[in-house]
Amino acid sequence: MTIAQERTLAAQVRADFPILDQEINGKPLVYLDNAATSQKPQAVLQALQHYYEHDNANVHRGVHTLSSRATDAYEGARDKVAKFVNAASRQEIIYTRNASEAINLVSNAWGLSTLKQGDEIILSVMEHHSNLIPWQLVAQKTGAVLKFVELTETEEFNLEQFKSLISDKTKLVSVVHVSNTLGCINPVKEICAIAHQHGARVLIDACQSVPHMPVDVQDIDCDWLVGSGHKMCAATGIGFLYGKLALLRSMPPFLGGGEMIADVFLDHSTYADLPHKFEAGTPAIAEAIALGAAVDYLMGLGMDKIHAYEEELTAYLYQRLAELPEVRTYGPKPTEDGKGRAALAAFTVGAVHPHDLSTILDQAGIAIRAGHHCTQPLHRHLGAQSTARASLYFYNTREEIDVFIESLKEAIEFFGSIFG
Amino acid sequence: MTIAQERTLAAQVRADFPILDQEINGKPLVYLDNAATSQKPQAVLQALQHYYEHDNANVHRGVHTLSSRATDAYEGARDKVAKFVNAASRQEIIYTRNASEAINLVSNAWGLSTLKQGDEIILSVMEHHSNLIPWQLVAQKTGAVLKFVELTETEEFNLEQFKSLISDKTKLVSVVHVSNTLGCINPVKEICAIAHQHGARVLIDACQSVPHMPVDVQDIDCDWLVGSGHKMCAATGIGFLYGKLALLRSMPPFLGGGEMIADVFLDHSTYADLPHKFEAGTPAIAEAIALGAAVDYLMGLGMDKIHAYEEELTAYLYQRLAELPEVRTYGPKPTEDGKGRAALAAFTVGAVHPHDLSTILDQAGIAIRAGHHCTQPLHRHLGAQSTARASLYFYNTREEIDVFIESLKEAIEFFGSIFG
Repeated sequence: MTIAQERTLAAQVRADFPILDQEINGKPLVYLDNAATSQKPQAVLQALQHYYEHDNANVHRGVHTLSSRATDAYEGARDKVAKFVNAASRQEIIYTRNASEAINLVSNAWGLSTLKQGDEIILSVMEHHSNLIPWQLVAQKTGAVLKFVELTETEEFNLEQFKSLISDKTKLVSVVHVSNTLGCINPVKEICAIAHQHGARVLIDACQSVPHMPVDVQDIDCDWLVGSGHKMCAATGIGFLYGKLALLRSMPPFLGGGEMIADVFLDHSTYADLPHKFEAGTPAIAEAIALGAAVDYLMGLGMDKIHAYEEELTAYLYQRLAELPEVRTYGPKPTEDGKGRAALAAFTVGAVHPHDLSTILDQAGIAIRAGHHCTQPLHRHLGAQSTARASLYFYNTREEIDVFIESLKEAIEFFGSIFG
Repeated sequence: MTIAQERTLAAQVRADFPILDQEINGKPLVYLDNAATSQKPQAVLQALQHYYEHDNANVHRGVHTLSSRATDAYEGARDKVAKFVNAASRQEIIYTRNASEAINLVSNAWGLSTLKQGDEIILSVMEHHSNLIPWQLVAQKTGAVLKFVELTETEEFNLEQFKSLISDKTKLVSVVHVSNTLGCINPVKEICAIAHQHGARVLIDACQSVPHMPVDVQDIDCDWLVGSGHKMCAATGIGFLYGKLALLRSMPPFLGGGEMIADVFLDHSTYADLPHKFEAGTPAIAEAIALGAAVDYLMGLGMDKIHAYEEELTAYLYQRLAELPEVRTYGPKPTEDGKGRAALAAFTVGAVHPHDLSTILDQAGIAIRAGHHCTQPLHRHLGAQSTARASLYFYNTREEIDVFIESLKEAIEFFGSIFG
């Protein structure tokens, strides 16, 4: 093996992320809050800058040069996203502000027009609020009933219980691919197969999977899948909905406005073909282009390689956390080589408030999150008011994990001296 | 008067817009498509870049330094927008992707929960599709009836007809402040006063006014007002809804997800206070910050000064257009000093297709728009399939108007030799 091959992925890419090269409270920044949002490589910032400095114009409706350039870049990014998740057609990719909006698009356009009193929706107790509240709102309006898959003893998706919940009354299964709190990787392909046997549709919340591993919508055979740009190296303000073409075609429009129309009369209108039917108003043009640049960047590195490196980090993170008996982690433990879960750890330390842990780690330059991570019902289920969470991405290093563990040790000693 | 005082606003600001300094088809770019989208000053691009290179983190939920910085910048921008439109409270400003989404927020959250069979909504025939289709969709769902204000002989909002349309059945008046096609400036303050006498709510589409003139929501006394970031020097992917506090408080949530909640249980949730109740999911953080930077930039120049300079340009544009008898413009003529309409001209030249005009002007580096400008019903009302449109902003110059007019003259001669 040559020296070049031994360089970790982080060593190769680190210089692409200028934000990481700064001090916080006099210490080098250790950014371990990637499940909340990722940092952006220079290639993405340059795509934004280039667009605004050279090509900025409104898309689709103009025949002048800038408008053509903007349209080509905006629609070209859609091709990239389609390829990234292996959609069968570019028309299956709808840009949204974020994954939440993508789920609300489905809950409103499909849910309100399809669900009836007594229809059942299966979610899991580990869902992010974004995959919970839209269905609560739809259930309130339609009389549909929500059912919840609980956890196994290893704090993973309980597939057996799911099989006992599903029936021909089930019209929708909407579940997260990778939990932002437990870090478990749910068996989405099997979930889809089972749901389809019962004629139910499946939506996959892939916010914590698409940034970190290869995701193939045709292989999973999901009906919809949502992703979030800002968690996968792209700008804020952009996410996407994948949906099977015939299904998206059958759905009524969601938001009304420019861009999504064919012919408009005072009293009625006809709508544009996909994907524009679901993109009302001037879209997030620069952000979509930035999403395309992020996809180029990630695919350039290789999603397999990113996933493999994150498994290495996962193994090391859990190996080091095991040195701290006071730390209770949530979700499944990884295998020795870091497989079977995502590169994040939600944890508690006895009675110490996670906010206090986060505050004290911030003094050492370490950014972790503390709170309910938008999974309040899961936290209630786990018997924890809140948790601390360190979440990694491919630019993080073993050395950063060391800094985090040493600082966490110090924090535990400090709080031990108070509470102990 | 000193020489410094004689410099036009465009001369002062031109260097702030790097995109304008380029050649298109071998000719200097003359960007006259500002009603579709504006260009962005360096200050806005730098705000974006600075955010991503120094402060990027998810907002509200984090206690670490980057998250605090991101939250401060994001919420600080809201204060700026509130001040920009003179809202009584920062809680009255809701960030949206664009103005279309802002109108859909109102049509869904307020419209669907309030309107009943036979209730009347008054729009005008000059509305942008964004202020038409959301109400068509609501009318279809609720049985509410749409009524339309038509045009005066000078192709302006017919206030007398509006007075004859409004009654106690009217629950909503939703009208554009400045038409993107006619360029007329509608008497929104008077419209609000009349509507309120009948107990009707008023929504103002201010996309074409807030970038160009001082707009004061308290003075207008509108119930809601929507604006678009990308048309006022900010990034794409951001717009805003202003709403009166008590009214916004009374509205049920629109999209569900993270950020907009107080407490989430599996089967129900309680919602956050304003403004967050209407901001589901990770918001367009960088874009909101860019909107704040755009507001700083515009207020630094002075909206009065921008408006006055645009009046000068309007006077000159219409003076020069008058040299071309083949050109039919739409909407009111300006006064001699450019008052009474916006700095744009939608026009047709006999049987020449506006797309052909735009294409030939693009060869001379001039970006104008051709089409229906998202006002198909208005175009039908005017008896025009489509129009060409030159729309100005404060960085445009008299010299650019000269280049446009000379090229338009040549185009007319060229087409005259074919059609004539």
